[in-house]
Amino acid sequence: MANYVFIATSLDGYIADEQGGVDWLTSIPDPDDGSDYGWAEHIARIDAIVMGRHSFETVLGFGVWHYEKPVVVLSRSLREIPAEYAERASLTSGTPHEVVSELASRGFANLYIDGGDVIRQFLASGLIDEMTISVAPVLLGRGIPLFDGNVPLCGLELKSSVAYANGIVSNRYAVRQNYVSGK
Amino acid sequence: MANYVFIATSLDGYIADEQGGVDWLTSIPDPDDGSDYGWAEHIARIDAIVMGRHSFETVLGFGVWHYEKPVVVLSRSLREIPAEYAERASLTSGTPHEVVSELASRGFANLYIDGGDVIRQFLASGLIDEMTISVAPVLLGRGIPLFDGNVPLCGLELKSSVAYANGIVSNRYAVRQNYVSGK
Repeated sequence: MANYVFIATSLDGYIADEQGGVDWLTSIPDPDDGSDYGWAEHIARIDAIVMGRHSFETVLGFGVWHYEKPVVVLSRSLREIPAEYAERASLTSGTPHEVVSELASRGFANLYIDGGDVIRQFLASGLIDEMTISVAPVLLGRGIPLFDGNVPLCGLELKSSVAYANGIVSNRYAVRQNYVSGK
Repeated sequence: MANYVFIATSLDGYIADEQGGVDWLTSIPDPDDGSDYGWAEHIARIDAIVMGRHSFETVLGFGVWHYEKPVVVLSRSLREIPAEYAERASLTSGTPHEVVSELASRGFANLYIDGGDVIRQFLASGLIDEMTISVAPVLLGRGIPLFDGNVPLCGLELKSSVAYANGIVSNRYAVRQNYVSGK
């Protein structure tokens, strides 16, 4: 059982602009080598995707469903999943530990933890094992941060680092849970 | 004439902890290959170092003078440089454009721009040409940010990326000034 983060940020650490947009990211040309930044490998090893309501609504806004694995929406405010997504997504709530236990009982052992708020909650609970963070060559100045001053002190181990010809640098870190402070 | 940034941050973008400390950085073992992360090459190409009062006071606190090039302290509040540093450091004030002009007239064409506040001022003035940012494998959670939501939108061009065996990833970016928004 392991929980993975796989996300892109600007150099100044934003996952979206102030309006939630990611044009600054999607406008970057694909890498020359046809690489998917490790996406297929990442999706292959997870059983389900956990995201917050904001991320889910962003995904719905795309109008295209990108995920081959079940999506679990972690939200206290969302009442139900829209009927047309009922086979692809489910709703849950609770602490990260409760969510991990519930999903394990449903057979979802390896999780893709997505969205800034959910990632920070899981980090604060010591429940992130590995983070792949792809840094785009842009300073946004303002936006929605990945880290916002509410994550615990964590030592990381760099597992791999790949610089693509389009300027994106993708770093994979193992989170050393035993280094988490007593926060 | 060019202005360079050469700085280290945590993965969450802090240049120092909340108390201004950098133990989280200096406690990382040196790279196996004896690399200095490009420091000697960086210092060789600059004529002077521009830093704010906070950075200058931090440097004085080290008790050891690291710099082979003249230091220029950019501060409106500092009255004078301590006498024992008068041959190594000088004091200036003004806008980034004024400082660059003044230093050019003193023969300092290529500048090392250091310290979060000064770096952000120079970025906002479109006066940073290149940034080398070395990312340490640690989440600090809180601290003094390099970017704080007050820099302009900037496109960057990745010039090089080096991952060291100790987990530090050092990326060098050219700043595409023509991409700076109308802020």
